[in-house]
Amino acid sequence: MAGADIHHRTEDFRRLYRKTLTDLQYFMGTSNDVMVFTSSGTGAMESAVSNLFSPGDKVVVAAAGKFGERWAEITRAFGLDVQILEAPYGDSVTPERVAAALNANSEIRGVFVQATESSTGVSHDVEGMAEAVGKTGALFVVDAITGLGTSSLDIDGWGLDVVIGGSQKAAMIPPGLAFLSLSEKAWERIDPRRPTYYYFDLLKHKKSAEKGESPWTPATSLLLGLSESLRYIREVGRENLIENAQLLAKATREAAEALGLKLFARGVPAGAVTSIRAPEGVSSNDIVEQFKTRFGAIVANGQGSMKGEIFRIAHLGYFDFADLFGVIAELEIILHSLGQRVEFGRGVGRVQEVYVAASGE
Amino acid sequence: MAGADIHHRTEDFRRLYRKTLTDLQYFMGTSNDVMVFTSSGTGAMESAVSNLFSPGDKVVVAAAGKFGERWAEITRAFGLDVQILEAPYGDSVTPERVAAALNANSEIRGVFVQATESSTGVSHDVEGMAEAVGKTGALFVVDAITGLGTSSLDIDGWGLDVVIGGSQKAAMIPPGLAFLSLSEKAWERIDPRRPTYYYFDLLKHKKSAEKGESPWTPATSLLLGLSESLRYIREVGRENLIENAQLLAKATREAAEALGLKLFARGVPAGAVTSIRAPEGVSSNDIVEQFKTRFGAIVANGQGSMKGEIFRIAHLGYFDFADLFGVIAELEIILHSLGQRVEFGRGVGRVQEVYVAASGE
Repeated sequence: MAGADIHHRTEDFRRLYRKTLTDLQYFMGTSNDVMVFTSSGTGAMESAVSNLFSPGDKVVVAAAGKFGERWAEITRAFGLDVQILEAPYGDSVTPERVAAALNANSEIRGVFVQATESSTGVSHDVEGMAEAVGKTGALFVVDAITGLGTSSLDIDGWGLDVVIGGSQKAAMIPPGLAFLSLSEKAWERIDPRRPTYYYFDLLKHKKSAEKGESPWTPATSLLLGLSESLRYIREVGRENLIENAQLLAKATREAAEALGLKLFARGVPAGAVTSIRAPEGVSSNDIVEQFKTRFGAIVANGQGSMKGEIFRIAHLGYFDFADLFGVIAELEIILHSLGQRVEFGRGVGRVQEVYVAASGE
Repeated sequence: MAGADIHHRTEDFRRLYRKTLTDLQYFMGTSNDVMVFTSSGTGAMESAVSNLFSPGDKVVVAAAGKFGERWAEITRAFGLDVQILEAPYGDSVTPERVAAALNANSEIRGVFVQATESSTGVSHDVEGMAEAVGKTGALFVVDAITGLGTSSLDIDGWGLDVVIGGSQKAAMIPPGLAFLSLSEKAWERIDPRRPTYYYFDLLKHKKSAEKGESPWTPATSLLLGLSESLRYIREVGRENLIENAQLLAKATREAAEALGLKLFARGVPAGAVTSIRAPEGVSSNDIVEQFKTRFGAIVANGQGSMKGEIFRIAHLGYFDFADLFGVIAELEIILHSLGQRVEFGRGVGRVQEVYVAASGE
């Protein structure tokens, strides 16, 4: 925590803060304004709802898992008139359903979605949805907390009005910072006269950011960490970071299938995380537990009704092939110990083949 | 940031979180529930306003500086009917004024104050105010972000309904975590049916805390740091931490006066920070700047209209006499270089005398 030795009302801090906001624009690939909050990503989600919409506004939520349900909860908490387009866990909501909802009601003021629904490992077709939303006056609000740095999002080209990220995913530092980009169309929606929010006040953050500051005391140690990881991302290149996550996702899927496992995601799988069904007669609880106790590895269980059914391997940020070789080798041993027939090295071999093919060797 | 290696949905984390909540109760000296947010202290201030009050509720804000004004802003942002009891910068609001406001209107639902107004270095008579508020149905909400660990606050004995703290003050870690204690009377005020908040939802945090979790991804690295500093506070003893801050404050005041400087705070000065007027004809900007450039020391300038007029020496948490000897010696050199007549060692000598007298040597 030694890095925290910076006071937030000094020139040193202002330089750091300005640089971080510029580097976040690079990381997100946008020229839109970017704001940073000391909060989890949920705080930035709330700010989009509370600042840009008014009670009674008609909005559409495309919900394909736990984080889609969070959009439903937040929009309801702030009194919006919410229509939910639900997809079963493992599926995604299609752009056609979003377009149909918009066509059926010209008063819709906003559409909310996850770029990547990390509870199920599914990606949404954000580009297709953006095309539909762009034809209307609605704002398109995208939770890309796990989508940023792991899948292609052309914020400016596709016209994504609000895109939300968090520090603990592809930005590779501990949780505690959230950030979001806002289009001109989004800023125009803010009514400065009627705030029912304070901590997550976007205009206050914009005005402070122009002076290189945060309106409230920010998490200085995390900002120092973020500035370092954004420097690394500039070195590696944003596109390379995304391509690597996509390649790791592909290798993980192929390895799982080579081991006779079934993938959970239908449609387009996420670049950030791969969801895999536990084999028939095996609980994913046991798989997750063995990863932890035998190898000190954190592999996530399914959430809610998916607990025991699936497990989720994250592959983003610093995670690379060196890590994936190990994780798949561990998975083979765990499946073997749980009574499954496993040919050791078969899954790892698929990962190696994907790696070698991509290196052009 | 290596300490962040803990996932927030694991048993290891739940143990840490439960322990941290218990240790926060010790640090605050209360048996009331304590909740933690990933945010600055302002977020916890907002939670008290949004969760415990409804638009139109009549409340009283005792404002004696910049943070008092923040209470006024937040309560207005959430539509409360706010009566401000203002004190000029450097003064405090008396319990008598609070009692008179409560007597004049039996419908007042809440009273908001700072235990320590750190923008001016003044303490409020929280005990006296609590006595007045306790005779009514109003909630007493105390921002003790700089007051905790630096001045005596008997939360349970005096009946303080909500007390707010932050990680970056006497809790001695970087900013990014806020916490607050809530009395039974406070919990009874929450109407679970009508939330106009989400991220700072107190009931959601209470329910999650019962499972050892935070509802949203918390700032894990900061929680690890906090658990360490709370362990240290248990070792030192809460009362000793407060007594030390009070003694350092006394030594700072006496040193300043020995150097012919005037203290800014009238009434009871804060234990956390001492505000000192720049000498006639000298700007505090130059004093603060020299502390920074010559000694790498962060001494705060006045805020707003007090900028250039006063400077503020903080003495809390890890800060001890060893630090204060240096700060006062530096101050003597700075005053000398700014053309003031200074007898070197005179201020330091006063600090030494206070130290020796307290050690009983």
